[in-house]
This record gives sequence, C-alpha cells and structure tokens, in this order.
Amino acid sequence: MANKEKINIGIIGLGVVGSGTVRTLTRNAEQIHSKIGAEFVIKRIAVRDLKKAREIDLPPSIVTDQVFDVTDDPEIDIVCELMGGVEPAHQYVKRALENGKSIVTANKEMMAKAGNDLLHLAESKKLDFLFEGSVGGGIPIIQPLKQALAGNQFSEVMGIVNGTTNYILTKMANEGADYADVLAEAQERGYAEPDPTNDVEGFDAQYKIAILASIAFNSRIDITKISVEGITRLTKRDFEMAKILGHVIKLVGIGQETADGIRVRVHPALLASGHPLASVNDVYNGIFVRGNAVGDAMFYGRGAGSDPTGSAVVGDLIEIARNMRMDATGRLGCTCFYEKPMLAMDTLKTKYYVRLSAWDRPKVLASVASVFGDFDVSIESVEQRTHHDEAEIVLMTHRTIERNLISALDILGRLSFVSSINNWIRVEE
Amino acid sequence: MANKEKINIGIIGLGVVGSGTVRTLTRNAEQIHSKIGAEFVIKRIAVRDLKKAREIDLPPSIVTDQVFDVTDDPEIDIVCELMGGVEPAHQYVKRALENGKSIVTANKEMMAKAGNDLLHLAESKKLDFLFEGSVGGGIPIIQPLKQALAGNQFSEVMGIVNGTTNYILTKMANEGADYADVLAEAQERGYAEPDPTNDVEGFDAQYKIAILASIAFNSRIDITKISVEGITRLTKRDFEMAKILGHVIKLVGIGQETADGIRVRVHPALLASGHPLASVNDVYNGIFVRGNAVGDAMFYGRGAGSDPTGSAVVGDLIEIARNMRMDATGRLGCTCFYEKPMLAMDTLKTKYYVRLSAWDRPKVLASVASVFGDFDVSIESVEQRTHHDEAEIVLMTHRTIERNLISALDILGRLSFVSSINNWIRVEE
Repeated sequence: MANKEKINIGIIGLGVVGSGTVRTLTRNAEQIHSKIGAEFVIKRIAVRDLKKAREIDLPPSIVTDQVFDVTDDPEIDIVCELMGGVEPAHQYVKRALENGKSIVTANKEMMAKAGNDLLHLAESKKLDFLFEGSVGGGIPIIQPLKQALAGNQFSEVMGIVNGTTNYILTKMANEGADYADVLAEAQERGYAEPDPTNDVEGFDAQYKIAILASIAFNSRIDITKISVEGITRLTKRDFEMAKILGHVIKLVGIGQETADGIRVRVHPALLASGHPLASVNDVYNGIFVRGNAVGDAMFYGRGAGSDPTGSAVVGDLIEIARNMRMDATGRLGCTCFYEKPMLAMDTLKTKYYVRLSAWDRPKVLASVASVFGDFDVSIESVEQRTHHDEAEIVLMTHRTIERNLISALDILGRLSFVSSINNWIRVEE
Repeated sequence: MANKEKINIGIIGLGVVGSGTVRTLTRNAEQIHSKIGAEFVIKRIAVRDLKKAREIDLPPSIVTDQVFDVTDDPEIDIVCELMGGVEPAHQYVKRALENGKSIVTANKEMMAKAGNDLLHLAESKKLDFLFEGSVGGGIPIIQPLKQALAGNQFSEVMGIVNGTTNYILTKMANEGADYADVLAEAQERGYAEPDPTNDVEGFDAQYKIAILASIAFNSRIDITKISVEGITRLTKRDFEMAKILGHVIKLVGIGQETADGIRVRVHPALLASGHPLASVNDVYNGIFVRGNAVGDAMFYGRGAGSDPTGSAVVGDLIEIARNMRMDATGRLGCTCFYEKPMLAMDTLKTKYYVRLSAWDRPKVLASVASVFGDFDVSIESVEQRTHHDEAEIVLMTHRTIERNLISALDILGRLSFVSSINNWIRVEE
C-alpha cells in the first residue's frame, strides 16, 4: 500500500459538500499530487438520482445510484460519506469500514449520535476515520484540538457554529429587524431552509458542540444531556437593549469542564462586545477554546458551504494519503478515554440579562430587587424606562446559580405589579 | 520503536519556552499519556549556566551544561531545540538529526534562514522535524496550513505576528500616546526588550512571515527579498487620523501570490475596522489566510509567552510520539516543492494613506491632487484641516502602483507650498 501511485476515492453523495469536494480535488490536483506523492482518482460517486442535472461535469461511468458500488469496490481505498443524516449513512460507513476502507465524513449528526462506535471500529481495523468537515465547515478545529493543542487540558470550548442563525442574528442586530422578517428574507436568499427547525431551534449547533466537547474533554458526550434553546424567542427589543449594555447576542454552543463534570449547552447568549466571538458576523463561524497551556485561542472562517466544507474533506483525504504512504492508517484514533459525568443546567453559574415590564409606580424597582435578593441573585446594573404607564426594567445580574434565577423569576411573574417577564438570556464572559 | 512505553526527550535551553514546555509536560502528563499510549520522560536538559536559579524544580542529574549530553545520548528519541538564534542552535540541531533524533524547535530565525536544509536532512533520515512554536506562539497555524488546509491553493497569508509591537500599537491607539512613551512603558513592564530593535524594526515579524509564506505557497522564501519596515515612524496623529477614517494601524506581515510570483513584506498598515485582524489587540496574534476552497480563515491567540509556546512544542512532541508508535516518523516533510520568483515592492498595487502639511492658501488641494493625477494616482477621500496658517491634508488613494505613489510624493515634497510629507502608510483590504 505504501507506494501506491494512485489512491482511489469513492464518494457517497454529490450534494453541496460532495460537489465542493470534487471541485477542490480537481482544481488543485497538481499541488495535492506534490503534497502526497500520489494521485487521487475519483473512482466512483454514488448519487440518489442519476438523472438530476449537476454543476459538475463527470464521466457518466463513475456515477452510480448503487451505494454498494462504492462501499464494496475492492479498488477503492477511501470512502467519503457526504450524504448526511444518521441512517442509512451510518450503515454505509460501517460497511465500508468492514470492507477495509478509511473514511472521511462531514456528517455532524452521525458523528454526534454514533461517532464513538464508528471510531472504535475504525481503530480496531487500523483504518483512518476523519471528520474535520462536520464542524465549522472549512475551519480547522478538530485536527488542532486533537493534534497541535493536544498538550492542553481544556476548560472551555465555545462556538458560533451555525451560519444560518448567525446570519439572522447579525441582521436583527444591524437592521433592528424582527425575527420573523429576517427569517423570511434568509429563506428567500437560500441562507435558511424552507423548514428552518434544525438551525433555528439549535439542533445543528447541538451536534457540533457535542463533537467539539467530546474532543476537548476526551469524553463521550450524551447528546440527550445537552440543554438546547434556539433563537425564536429573541426580539428586536433584546438587541436594542444588549447594544445599550455594550453586548451582542449570539447563538452559542458551550462546553465547560469543572471539577464536578462537563456541562454542554446551546442557547442565545449576550457576549461583551470585546469578546473574540462578538465580531463573528453573518454566515461566518468562530470557535473559541481555553486550554491550560495555550490560554485563549480562536478559529474563524466560513462554517458551511460547498467549497469550504470541501476544503475540510480534501484536507482529511490528504491526511489519510500521507498515512497510507507510511502504512500508518489508524494513527489517530478515538480520543474519548473518559466517561465524565454531565451536569444539568440548574446548577450553572453565570450572569443573566432579564427584561420585564411592570406598572410604573413608586418602589417597583425596589420590590423587584428585593425578590431577586431573596434568592441570592445580586444585581450588577439596571436600566429602567417608562412608556405610558408601563415601566420596562432591564437588568444584568452578577454571577448566580440558574435555579435561583428561575425561582426568582417565577415569583416575580406572579406579582400583581409585574405585567410580564419578557425575556431572560444568559451572559457569557 | 513502535511499542516503546517511554519516549525520552532531550531539551536544549531552559529559558521562557523551555520552562513552558517542561511545565506543560509535567502538569498534563496523565492526559498526554492517554493520548500517545506512552510516557514522555525528560531525560536531559542542557542549560548555559548550571547555577542559575530556576522557577522549575528538576532533579540536578538531568540538567547539564554540555549540549552533546543531549544531542549524542543514544537513549534520547526527540530533541527540543529551545535556545533560539541561528548559531550554534543550527549546528546542534544538525548533529541531533545526524544522530537519528526527531526534532522540535520554536526557533523562527533558524527556520527562516536555514529551515529548508534542515527539513531536507530530516526527510532523508525519515525523521520528524516540527516547528509549530516558531510562529504565533501557541496558535496552531503551521500544522493547519500543512494538513487540514492542504487542499487549498493560497493567494494570501497575513498576520499580526509580533506581540510586542501589537501591544505598543494598541496602547498608542487607545491612549493617544506617542511611540517613545509607550515603548518606555512596555520596556518597564517587560513586554519589550531593553534593546527593542528586533521587534520594533520588524525583524521578528520578517522571520515569521517568511515561514508562513514558504508553507502557504510551497516555495522557498529568500528572506533578503522581504521588504521590512518597523513601527518607529508612526505618530499619534496617524492613529487619530486612521480612526477618523474608520481604520486601525497594525504591524502586519503579508505574503501574496500572483501570476508573477510571490511578494512578502512587513510594514505598518491601515486595516478597515471590520477586517478580521483589526480586533486583534494587545499581545495577541492573529493570522489570516485566503485559500481557493476555504475562503477567508483566521487563527487567533497568544503569540508568545512561556506556556502558550510550550503548548505548541508539546503538541509537536505528541505528533512525533504518534508517528513513532506507527514507525512513521518523516511522515510530513518539507512542503517547499517550488522556487517561485519573489517580487519587489515598487510593483505592489494597493491603497495608500498620505498625510502632508502645506501652506493654507487657495487651490493647495487642487495642486496636490494634480500632482497625484500626473502619476495616475487617483484619490478616494480627502480630509483637510487648518491649524494657524498650515493646512494638514490627509488622503486615501484608490489602488495604485507603489512606484507611482513614491514618484508623486517625491515631486510633492519639492513643491514650495508643501511644508512636509509627514507620513504615508499602506492600506490593506
């Protein structure tokens, strides 16, 4: 295997990522050849519909609608699974591994739900199994965490890992627009799906932060124990107030490790405008990590799209080719040695932004502050504005325990002079 | 070699980087053991002065003042050269390679001046030779360029790669302070050396951008063909004007490839405040790359310091250990396959900021604009302010060829009504 002049690739799926992969392999073929000392040959591509018109010109003989033409072809060395979804992708990848093929995938959902077993299967067969494209599109983040930063213990990984919601939130912030209007525009422009649930409810970010946390903390992450909130309850008023407070609002995935365990969550958060992630706008992604040697580091780039994700897939292919040349596939296996406990949200300690409406009468603020005080929630800053007879109170708490905040809000919501708890959002430092 | 339970490390130099390396290896030993399936043992450390007091507690038996105790010890598998400077570091590294040891170094000057030959020597002996810590401290950038992003052709790499000057420029921008005052303060606080030449004249950045450009463009870079300007001619007035124009001033290293060749340069530049590098402040570093698949990506973190650079060195050690386990050292050799021509500055095409003083009399601006026009330099925006009898004219040009700008400035400087060309600075988009 070491001295092969041609390395045969099979691809499953020729959608957005598959096309970017083929395009990148083709236009940069000469440089890639120099780098790996061999030629990549796209031997077979499995597609769902042979008749579909495609941007990319391919010899008809290499396109098939039979997946097993890829997974079972003895001449294929590496299989790229680029179809997405858990099943049947998972079965195809398993079959390819059983047939002795190294794997590249960009499938975040499969990796978050079934990655561990697949990685162990690959390891047992001394095969490579790489998945850089599953998080952050073209941004190198999985390889840096597993390799260049491997000397660190990480206490935190936090990312803006969903381009669709970041586009929507950036528009809401810049244009003072409401969620529904911006979503409709994003759908028209193709930045959001007709059914946007997976993005706007935070599920896409959930898969990605599960992958990042598992690598950063060297532990399996049970995705059912990740707390997930989307962006649908954010209003333009929250963006106005965040700005006044010197903050931006972003949908973040956060993994943190403490002495008690790991807490992983996805939710909108206020970030101070000086935070490295605060200037990650539009469809860009940014991933921030904190290690005990490197300190704070951040990775930024296009978190999705055809060519950027193709860049990640081709980087993985090059990595495998270099391993093949040395008979060293399986060099880097699963790095989840631990099964660390996962913590619930009610014990989270952070700062909170709270926006509520109350009757405009004397001592309202004192009464509100007193309820917070009863639950040990101390207040860092308050803005009070009055429209007609209603007072809008926007406050930022000091670091406090989430269950205390929720208990205080529960009491406040029942008081006669509080008209509504309009929103509360976590604040990350 | 593949199943070694202990991997012996020798270290040359126990200064800032050496201490961070030893500290990181020690405090994260358990996790590192899990990751590589073997134990790192620091077998020997060569220091200049055995009597010097050190922060780190080491058994006296492993410390030596004889470098050959490290380079020639047959039990040592990997040598970390962390002393800096070209000679004698270069000779020591060569000797260690000849003795069959893989190398980790953080030595930017040696890599910029003699890296190519060393890499080829390592390759010929199937040894690893890694140098992540030589650029950007703990920020993973060399490995991502060589591996995760290897599927790209790069057109640009631009970095804020010197923490000392970035600290000084950030202070000048935020505090409206003058260069000499901020430098003195930085020296007092230990952020700048007593002799700051290497940093403030841009030589440190020159070595680093040479390394980055050689990897991004897969070509040897002759450092004598890099144009280098430091930060000493920047004044607080330039920072005020840059801010008014919506820009910041940063010392950047830039490598760009065009159809004609590669141009590599170090100089202060105006960056629009929305540029990904514009918010890289204080001692932080940021490295921006543009690839034909990934698009724009940026890497951010602590570009120097004991633990961050130690993080990079330990990451390289882990990489080598993983290769040793597979008998795959030498897996990733020198990636400079090309010897591309290097371009001079006079054919650079970019935008320019020009600040000049002239007599305050009618038609001054028209006369200035007319000289620029004679050299095909067209003007994008102008600010004119008058103090007493003197007009300060600050203008931003459209993209123009550098030799034309310089010719125009040469003529302008000789006109009777122009009192002085105060400064001109390149503007990067």
